[in-house]
Amino acid sequence: MSQSAPVSSSLLSYEEAFPGSRKVFAEGRAGVRVPMREIALSGGHQPLRVYDTSGPQGVDVREGLPLLRRDWIEGRGDVTHEPRQLRLDAWRREMPPALAARTRTRRRARDGQVVTQLAYARRGEITPEMEFIALREGVEAAVVRDEVARGRAIIPANINHPELEPMIIGRQFLVKINANIGNSAVSSSIEEEVDKLRWATLWGADTVMDLSTGKDIHETREWILRNAAVPIGTVPIYQALEKVGGRPEDLTWELYRDTLIEQAEQGVDYFTVHAGVLLRYVPMTARRLTGIVSRGGSILAKWCLAHHKENFLYTHFREICEIMRAYDVSFSLGDGLRPGSIADANDAAQFGELQTQGELTRIAWEYDVQVMNEGPGHVPMHLIKENMDKQLEWCGEAPFYTLGPLTTDIAPGYDHITSAIGAAMIGWYGTAMLCYVTPKEHLGLPNRDDVKAGVIAYKIAAHAADLAKGHPQAQTWDDTLSRARFEFRWRDQFNLALDPVTAQSYHDQTLPADGAKVAHFCSMCGPKFCSMEITQQVRDYAAAHGVDAQDALSVGLQEKARDFGRTGEIYVPASDA
Amino acid sequence: MSQSAPVSSSLLSYEEAFPGSRKVFAEGRAGVRVPMREIALSGGHQPLRVYDTSGPQGVDVREGLPLLRRDWIEGRGDVTHEPRQLRLDAWRREMPPALAARTRTRRRARDGQVVTQLAYARRGEITPEMEFIALREGVEAAVVRDEVARGRAIIPANINHPELEPMIIGRQFLVKINANIGNSAVSSSIEEEVDKLRWATLWGADTVMDLSTGKDIHETREWILRNAAVPIGTVPIYQALEKVGGRPEDLTWELYRDTLIEQAEQGVDYFTVHAGVLLRYVPMTARRLTGIVSRGGSILAKWCLAHHKENFLYTHFREICEIMRAYDVSFSLGDGLRPGSIADANDAAQFGELQTQGELTRIAWEYDVQVMNEGPGHVPMHLIKENMDKQLEWCGEAPFYTLGPLTTDIAPGYDHITSAIGAAMIGWYGTAMLCYVTPKEHLGLPNRDDVKAGVIAYKIAAHAADLAKGHPQAQTWDDTLSRARFEFRWRDQFNLALDPVTAQSYHDQTLPADGAKVAHFCSMCGPKFCSMEITQQVRDYAAAHGVDAQDALSVGLQEKARDFGRTGEIYVPASDA
Repeated sequence: MSQSAPVSSSLLSYEEAFPGSRKVFAEGRAGVRVPMREIALSGGHQPLRVYDTSGPQGVDVREGLPLLRRDWIEGRGDVTHEPRQLRLDAWRREMPPALAARTRTRRRARDGQVVTQLAYARRGEITPEMEFIALREGVEAAVVRDEVARGRAIIPANINHPELEPMIIGRQFLVKINANIGNSAVSSSIEEEVDKLRWATLWGADTVMDLSTGKDIHETREWILRNAAVPIGTVPIYQALEKVGGRPEDLTWELYRDTLIEQAEQGVDYFTVHAGVLLRYVPMTARRLTGIVSRGGSILAKWCLAHHKENFLYTHFREICEIMRAYDVSFSLGDGLRPGSIADANDAAQFGELQTQGELTRIAWEYDVQVMNEGPGHVPMHLIKENMDKQLEWCGEAPFYTLGPLTTDIAPGYDHITSAIGAAMIGWYGTAMLCYVTPKEHLGLPNRDDVKAGVIAYKIAAHAADLAKGHPQAQTWDDTLSRARFEFRWRDQFNLALDPVTAQSYHDQTLPADGAKVAHFCSMCGPKFCSMEITQQVRDYAAAHGVDAQDALSVGLQEKARDFGRTGEIYVPASDA
Repeated sequence: MSQSAPVSSSLLSYEEAFPGSRKVFAEGRAGVRVPMREIALSGGHQPLRVYDTSGPQGVDVREGLPLLRRDWIEGRGDVTHEPRQLRLDAWRREMPPALAARTRTRRRARDGQVVTQLAYARRGEITPEMEFIALREGVEAAVVRDEVARGRAIIPANINHPELEPMIIGRQFLVKINANIGNSAVSSSIEEEVDKLRWATLWGADTVMDLSTGKDIHETREWILRNAAVPIGTVPIYQALEKVGGRPEDLTWELYRDTLIEQAEQGVDYFTVHAGVLLRYVPMTARRLTGIVSRGGSILAKWCLAHHKENFLYTHFREICEIMRAYDVSFSLGDGLRPGSIADANDAAQFGELQTQGELTRIAWEYDVQVMNEGPGHVPMHLIKENMDKQLEWCGEAPFYTLGPLTTDIAPGYDHITSAIGAAMIGWYGTAMLCYVTPKEHLGLPNRDDVKAGVIAYKIAAHAADLAKGHPQAQTWDDTLSRARFEFRWRDQFNLALDPVTAQSYHDQTLPADGAKVAHFCSMCGPKFCSMEITQQVRDYAAAHGVDAQDALSVGLQEKARDFGRTGEIYVPASDA
């Protein structure tokens, strides 16, 4: 958040953000109740239900969200409860009692048990999480299970995150978007981060990554997790780096391992792990225009160079898998060598790492750990598809999770747009989740408006991809809005928009009168002439003359048109002669 | 413009919009002097010259722009001067004397002469306009001539628009963008329209369409043309409709013809003509979700139905060609049946009209008249390429000029983004010019901020397309900015941005201190840790060890990696053991 404009003072509520909508619950098997946003329509039209990421509303952040998954997790009988390894009594005393109560113990897989959704799916089980997702996505639960079992989809759902409303990331499902939040050394507070979480999910973020690098990392994350109905991802190396005073060369496997456990116990749902940044790839970046731009990638590159050793995340990868499967934390295999400019796209360093991501994906699957792969970055349009093709081939169809990609470097201040172009395309090609980019990318930390701008741009990209992939729910939304537009149901059009209030305010700027909201014209053509009206006359005409008869007639006319092509004479119907 | 916030009060000047830039002139053959924007860089780096559409600066709108092309046009000896046919002494008395002086006569081709750039090109001539464009685009003048001669590019340049700085529209050249301005019955004034013209071209609009539908259409257009360094396009049927009180059925060929002549005499550079909206296509739209959404298309559909006659623009098409070639007005063959929603994309009505556009393109070429074809509209990503492929095939590779396309309907208020996605893609596929869409599309009339938002989004789309097509100048711009970013030359990065002031203001929000503009860190990671710094260490390492040696080493390691893939064992370098 910008320090001068704290977000909390002007956050819209669910009702204010989505007038005409209310939250409803679809009831499914295994007792699941799936939240959806129901948009009321006028004139007797059926309301439209759309996917809802906003989570339970009206909950005090000091209480934390309801424990939706608790009984599901406990009911499987495969977890133990023990005190958390990390004892931070000082900060725990400052936590509100309700949150502090949730921090005393942690769940972990019983010895010999595997508690990942992948393990359940491979055993043929349909978990309540899968039932929830099936209803949410409008597919059969068996499809959810089979895609997870195949490794083509993941359900990031740490057993220590019972507040979660389960969701799925995979290319057979709706394209998802991630929003990054997180303070840095120069800005932000805990309350602001929780506000950003709520704000991002209000507008449609499907997962949120907490990329905090400043002080109070652990405490910030605790507040976020206890108030997050969406999966939370982190990059554990950031916190590990804090623990060694910001000196990458001082990082050790033991310290990193403890950080993984600390965060897994808190309930983080997926970890970005840059295990593919191998020593041999690092010098390949020397000739690049913009070198290494990933923070995680450069931390590990520096470690590799300082010690002249292989990346310890790679050499200890199997131990990492064992930790993550004990909590069902999913991998987001990082792309630490992603291109930071158009000039560096699709080079040897980037694709070398992607091949290694593929190797690591198969190892994680050996351990029943769920995996997705992170992708670029800055890529011109003609090089985007190669990224998707190689990822599918090399990484065994594990879900791809890309940052944009940005399709040009020349528009700092507008990188939500430069990247929405690439994101929509790669989403269509098969990317399962798109990490948003805000207008502040490359320039500063996003404030409230930037987070919203980034989320909306990415909802557009993801939805455009869903449409291009032929998702029936996606098409229904477009058709419902277009029908409202065509029938001059202005308020319905606003309410069906991704951002109703903005749509209405733009209409108000030209035609502020309330009567204009029911007018059968708009400011584009004015009241005297309207193309929409004329279409009704066309329909009357077609009904009177019969469209089919016209179609038959048109065949004859098309023959004439071909004659015309040959003779160069324009055909004039007899009635015009 | 929004009535509450007149644009003139807060227009930025060229210097304010582009700090660090100045206008320079490249000197070419035939005495041409091509304006370019030169962006100064710090630290001894060569300045970057970029394409400039802003036109002569500091000119009083009551004087009109310098007559750059006058001697070129007159020097060919193929035009006559006569009083304009239209005598509107009343309004002419209210015009400033300098502008009024330019309205007394009009140029027209001498009998037996053809004054179009296409005719010159076909005769093998390289006109000063072509020399100007060659320098502007960085290509040989013969390439310009040959592309025009082939019909694959057009130079919209009415002989009555001597104020024009010539530009080219064709897929072998930089992708262009058009901005629409124009008042309607409910809003706007003449001064505001001229301000919008200047504002749109300041930010990079390559052509501007005046879509006015209210009163004073003729006078508004005169002010615009006399102050326009870019080609001006219109849709003459709008003015014709005004002349018959807004009743499409009262339109006649004679009235339309006179309107064409009136506008051609003023200097309009291209006309949108909806001659492809044939009677037989009209009933095909009856089953659509959103019918006919083009204003021009619906006017002509109504006329066709009312008279049950073929579209008079089609039946009189050869007479239209004869008028347009006498002034070198280019065709923009309208797509009156373009889809107005995702549901209606690529249907029979749309493609029927496109086929007819192809027939009409060939007729126009018979008359040496330049032609481009307008395209959609609302199209989901997977259906975009078919539009380009069919247009190239059916319309003989005449330049394609598309509106967006919008890739989803669900984001009113953000249609500059929904459409920038489609515009970038179709630009890459070969579209020569992209008609912008503003955030107000479907909701209201764009104000100053909306015009800028639309232009910037479309500069991004066009530039991303140039990059994907491999345009060398485009790549240089990206590389120059990325290098500045990587070297922490913050002010250079801002100045190289499409919108420098916005980029800097975003940086200021997080790190307002002036010292931060030379700091070797940014707000993303803070001062303690920086990925860019680490890359320098990588470079030092690579230099010390030799990248080539590393490349050789990596071959060996890749073999190990393949072994690993087979054995499932992670390879650990000897140095780590």
